Formats: sequence, C-alpha cells, structure tokens
Amino acid sequence: MIHPAELIQRKRDGGRLSADELNELVLGYASGDVPDYQMAAFCMAVIFRGLDAAETFAMTEAFIDSGERIDMGALLGRRVVDKHSTGGVGDKTSIAVAPIVAACGVPFGKMSGRGLGHTGGTLDKLESIPGFRVELTLDQFVAQVRDVGAAIIGQTADLVPADKKLYALRDVTATVDSVALIAASIMSKKIAAGAEAIVLDVKVGDGAFMKTLADARILAEAMLALGERAGRRVVCLLTDMDQPLGNAVGNALEIREAAATIRGEGPPDFTELVLDACAKLLALSDLGIDEGEGRRRAENATRDGSATAAYERWIRAQGGDPDESLLPRAPVIAPVKATRNGYVHALGAIRVGNAALHLGAGRRTKEDAIEHAVGVVCRRKRGDAVEAGETLAEVHARDEASALEAVRAVADAYELGDERPPAKPLLLDVLG
Amino acid sequence: MIHPAELIQRKRDGGRLSADELNELVLGYASGDVPDYQMAAFCMAVIFRGLDAAETFAMTEAFIDSGERIDMGALLGRRVVDKHSTGGVGDKTSIAVAPIVAACGVPFGKMSGRGLGHTGGTLDKLESIPGFRVELTLDQFVAQVRDVGAAIIGQTADLVPADKKLYALRDVTATVDSVALIAASIMSKKIAAGAEAIVLDVKVGDGAFMKTLADARILAEAMLALGERAGRRVVCLLTDMDQPLGNAVGNALEIREAAATIRGEGPPDFTELVLDACAKLLALSDLGIDEGEGRRRAENATRDGSATAAYERWIRAQGGDPDESLLPRAPVIAPVKATRNGYVHALGAIRVGNAALHLGAGRRTKEDAIEHAVGVVCRRKRGDAVEAGETLAEVHARDEASALEAVRAVADAYELGDERPPAKPLLLDVLG
Repeated sequence: MIHPAELIQRKRDGGRLSADELNELVLGYASGDVPDYQMAAFCMAVIFRGLDAAETFAMTEAFIDSGERIDMGALLGRRVVDKHSTGGVGDKTSIAVAPIVAACGVPFGKMSGRGLGHTGGTLDKLESIPGFRVELTLDQFVAQVRDVGAAIIGQTADLVPADKKLYALRDVTATVDSVALIAASIMSKKIAAGAEAIVLDVKVGDGAFMKTLADARILAEAMLALGERAGRRVVCLLTDMDQPLGNAVGNALEIREAAATIRGEGPPDFTELVLDACAKLLALSDLGIDEGEGRRRAENATRDGSATAAYERWIRAQGGDPDESLLPRAPVIAPVKATRNGYVHALGAIRVGNAALHLGAGRRTKEDAIEHAVGVVCRRKRGDAVEAGETLAEVHARDEASALEAVRAVADAYELGDERPPAKPLLLDVLG
Repeated sequence: MIHPAELIQRKRDGGRLSADELNELVLGYASGDVPDYQMAAFCMAVIFRGLDAAETFAMTEAFIDSGERIDMGALLGRRVVDKHSTGGVGDKTSIAVAPIVAACGVPFGKMSGRGLGHTGGTLDKLESIPGFRVELTLDQFVAQVRDVGAAIIGQTADLVPADKKLYALRDVTATVDSVALIAASIMSKKIAAGAEAIVLDVKVGDGAFMKTLADARILAEAMLALGERAGRRVVCLLTDMDQPLGNAVGNALEIREAAATIRGEGPPDFTELVLDACAKLLALSDLGIDEGEGRRRAENATRDGSATAAYERWIRAQGGDPDESLLPRAPVIAPVKATRNGYVHALGAIRVGNAALHLGAGRRTKEDAIEHAVGVVCRRKRGDAVEAGETLAEVHARDEASALEAVRAVADAYELGDERPPAKPLLLDVLG
C-alpha cells in the first residue's frame, strides 16, 4: 500500500518515484482511492520538480493501464498511422492529413481531445460539419479505420481514463504546464489507441503552448523517447506558430480550408505542412516507401480527386454531409483594410486567436458553447506585399458589434513595414 | 468573483496575491466554494514560492475572519496571556506555565491543537488526567479564564474554521512545511482566541520542526510581525531541541513532571524554561512589572504552594482530578543501562521521540489512539557523568516486547564520551 502524502513529499523534495509507486498512485487516482486533492498537490510538485525519463514513461504506462489498449496491428493486420499537434492558431492539419494518407492506402486512426483555447480543437472543427458524430465506440472506431481507412473520434471512457480524469484536474489547478505530464498525456492516448506510426507536430511561437524552440525541443524529445520505449515509430516536426497556420481561423472556416487543401487548392504554407506530414506518415507506414515517394503519392492524391473521395467517405462514415455549401456561415463578414502600402512584417498568432475567441470560435471555460461559423480569414500573411485600402483579412461574426471589435483586434495583429522581411520557414526542425 | 485557477497560477509563477484575493480564496475554501484540490495545489505552490509579509498577514486575517473572534480584553477587563510552542520532544511547558502565571494573578487562556507526532500534543497530555475535558464552548472558555484564571482547550469549530480545515488538508498533501502557512496558522488561532500578550517558543534542532537556528529565526520573525500587525505584545524564544526537554517523554509521565515543576521540584532545564516563559508573560501582562520582578513572583509561586493550588483549581474546573496517584501507569518499566563510564555527549531527541511513538505515546495517523501511560524518562542528559551499569533512562511500556525494542532505541539515542562536553544553553535567543 502506498502512502500518497509520502510520495507527494518525496517529489516535492526533489526525489524520484519508482514505476510501481507511480502506477499505484495513478491507478489509485483513477479508482477514486487517491483523492483529487492529493493528486493536485502531486501535480504542482511535478510542475516545480519535473519527472525524469523513467518516471515519465511509468506515468504514461500507468495512464494506459488504467483502461483498454487497442492492438490495431493484430486487429487489422496493418500498421495504423496517427498524427498529433500540440495545437496552434488555425491548425486543422489532421483533418487534411487523414483522408490524404487514407487515399494512399494507409489506415489513419486518431483519438482527439476537445479544445480549450482560441478556437475549438479538431473535434469542434469536425462538428461544424452537419451531422458529424465524434462519439464512436472503440469497436466502431476499429471497424471504421479498417473499412473506410480513416477515423477521428473523441476520447472514449474506455481508453486512458486516468489521463482524462487527471487532465480535467490539471486544467483547474494550474498544473497543465509540465512537459512530462503533457508528454505522458499525449503519448498515452496515442499508444493506447493503437497507432504504430505517429507524426507529432510541436508548435513553437507566440500562438503556441511552447514559446521557444528550446522548450519545444524538450517536449519533442520527451515524446519521442516515450514512443520509442513503447516500440512505436515516431517523427516529430517543430513548426512555427508566430503567425496563424494557413489563412482560416475558426471552425467551419477551417473545414473549408482543409477541404480545399485536400483537393490541392489550399494556402501554400498549410499545403506544405500537410504534404510534409503525409510524406513522413507514408514513409513510416507499412507501404515500404521512402519519404520522397510518400510526398509524390500524397501530392498525386490531392490532384487526382482520390483524397477528396477519401475525405467524403470518411465524413459520411461518421454521419456528416461533406457538401461544403451546408457548412454554417456567419451573417456578418467585415474586411480588415491596410492603412498603408508596404509588406506584412508580422501577423500575431495570439492576437488573431484571441479575436476568434472573442467572436465565439473558442472556449474560455469548459461550459462555453462554440459558434462554428465565426472566425477570421487572413488574406495576407508574413512577407506579402500590401497596398493601402486592400483587404488584409476578413472577420466572420455573429453581429456588427463583435465584428467591429474583431476588426480592430485583427488590424492590431498586423505589423506592416517598408521592406520585404526575410523569409521565415514554417518547418523549424525534424526530430526522430 | 475570483478564479482560483488564476490565483494558483499567479502564485506558481512567483507573483503576489492581494489581500482581497487571499480573503476570497480562504473564505471560499471555508464555505466549500473553493474545492480541496484547488487549495491543495495553491498550498504546494506556496511551498515553492512562499508568501510575502503582506500576503501572510492577509492569510492570517482571512483565517480569523472565517469564524468568531473573542475580545478577551473587553470581556474580562484584563489582558489575557497565552503561550505557544512549535512543539518538540517532551514539551509540556504550557501545562506548567498556565497555573504559575494564574497564581501570579494574570489570566491565561489557550486554544491548542492535537499532536501528530512523537508524543501527543498538549491536549493529549491533559487528557491523561482522569476526567479532564478539553472540549469547552467559547462561553465556557471565557468564563473559566475569568473565574479560574487558566484554561487550555481544544480548537473549537467557531474559531478559525478555515485554518482547521486547511491544516487537515495540508497534513495529507505534504504542504505543512511552509513558514508563512505555519505562522499564519499559529497566529490566527492566538489572535482569534483573544490573548493580548503572547510568548512564542520556536524549538530548534533534531527533535523539532525547525532544524536550524536560521530557519527558526525566519519563522519567529514571521510570527512576531503578524502579532505586531494585529496589535498584540509578542516575545519569541528560540530554544534547543537537540535533546528532549526535561526528563519525561510521554503523556501521563509529562503531566507528573509538569506538576512537580509547578511545586518547584522539576528538572533544571525544564524549570528554567518554564520560569523564563512565566517571567516574560508577566512582564507583558497588565501587572506593570518588569521581567526580573516577574521571575521572582513566578519562583515564589512554585515555592509557596500557590501555583499548585492554581493548578488543582484549573484541572478541577475542566472536570479532571489532579491527584497524581490516579494518573495511568504502564505495567512494564525497563531500565536503559550505561555500558561504560563517561559523560553524555548527546541524547538524540528525535530517537527518543520515535521510541515513545513506537511505544504508543503518539500518533502516526489521525486515527491512531494514544496510550497515555507509556513513554520514556531520561535520568541522564547531556553533560551528565555516568558510570557503567547505571540507569540512563526508564522505558514505560504496555508489554515486554515493546519495552525491549524501546530500550534498544533509547540506548542508541545516548552518545557517551570520555570528556565532559561543553555546556550548551537551552535558550538560544529571544526576539521581539
């Protein structure tokens, strides 16, 4: 029998916990034997003292052991792939990646969380599609990955319940910001859901959780180590989040942009990231091809209509109607105009994200409802030339008042200058 | 409306909280609006980040505001005095001090907590007296201080309920060890209970919470500052706890030693501390005398029988029988013998305390029952000459097996050497 107070004290004082101790603590928490208040104190001690690699792995294993574990390889006779992003403004990458790799013959299966931030998470974006259901059972999930080739569903109660319970606690006790706990939380879900090849995307910059490349690298390395220890093939991209990804920020707006990208008509930066992620997933898959070949196949799928066909099959399989004209539209669309000639030097991701949040695209608390139609579309991005009076961005709002406020906020997010700024790559590094 | 998660995060990140914010947090916790898990995370953040003087005072005020506050000065027309120790092995000082100052005509009123440690707390020691009741109402407490001159009672639900609730939480979340929280907890009880003159005794050494003089000084200064801000007269002693205080360790054994000291027959170190504390309390009282005169009056009271009379009045007022022959006795008394000639160089307080704890004198968990009769009586202490075969200490046990174990442990607590060690003062410093 463990004594939680002793474990908390040891971590508080900078000591280590054994795998058995962490397992008992986490499973005790999941079963209710260890109360919320002890786990909250433990997590705060972890914020200050951290967990080493062995502790982080033990925590991950304990999360997984708290529920079921899907052996996708055995069930499908295929290597299922998955992609995860730490989240940023305008990040709809998984929604584009899933059908493209499915079109290339590789099964894609992802369990996703709800967003609490500027815009909704992947699930919220998908729910802006009329009829789309994110709540599938594990059996339905496995069957859909097998039969349709792609599935993105919400976290079920069967998988990593300890993580689900702990995440809700961390969210209200200011104990989210621990690299070890974040890595364990993400990787336990990936591993339990059965994907054997995983591309991670750690966002870096003002609109991301990780503000510096150095911090992002630490998180990336922690997740890579967890994946390796669990025998998964993992690659981690580090990508820029100083400006929004692609043009669209807001749930239905992002679905439109994802669909456009799937048919080869997306904005260049987002298209590039999607194809990069697809190429890496295909190279990690059981197709036995290299990244260059993966890239060619992914591009072809966006050109020959096969990715769009896979997208429509997938959306229909989860009850949605892929007809874009059915996506909700905001009643007010207001332009953000350039007040001078010049070049876009910066387009602050966090400011655009907050503008979208205030429009209703995201949640400030778990109880907030999402407005799927609202958001921002950035027509000009870093490096683009602009002329006075030209439209920099469009605000999509539920009413004139909130539109006006957002137009001001988005205008403030744009920094214009005389000279064209030096190019800044989207892809900062690749690890693993 | 405060958002607890924001306050936790600010403290976690090294920021300050305003008095209003701390007040809302603590009162919200007392009322149940702020849940245990948020308060536990907050306390752990405080462990790492601390509270500044203003925050500590605000916390203290909030504890007091959570319940009633007794205005002893107005109710009695007298300046009531109180004494508090941070606790150590063999510390029965308050039990001797209360009747001595009462015999000198100064009202003594103390609310005390339960001990969780080597031996019981003051309340547990008093409960080894047959019939003694520690649960009085506030009205009974005030009446007894007025009519009898002395009262020591348990913490009632009416006074500082927020502190009581928070202390129980801190105890199980490894968040006790914060100087600011300890100071606020102690001083809120003192201030709410109405004493206007307070002598604090911060124990320093291996058998105390504070292991170094530097740490003890920090706690002492925090408590003095809180007392001053609340308009109380406070003096703080810093005293040695490298060896047990006095000879007796264990509840009924300590009551016998306190009674002996009250009639002028106590061990020298304990007698010295008791008279010091009495002298300082009398000098802070409304008698208008200095410390030298206070010391003389306190000594006289122990010689002329008036302190013993005050003790018996007080014990009877709370339902107890002061007849020492009625105190419980352990069935087994086993000697700890010296194995060589020499001098006692050290008598480890924590080892003696743990021996008493294992005999049943203290609590390891809140549910443990106390055995009042058991404990250790140290016949030789630091600096004493000893001869081989002489009794160093006596173990009082419920059975032979536990006696044997305790004899070994107490023998290990004694360090004997050839030379007489240099004298070490009991009183290390006085602040305030």
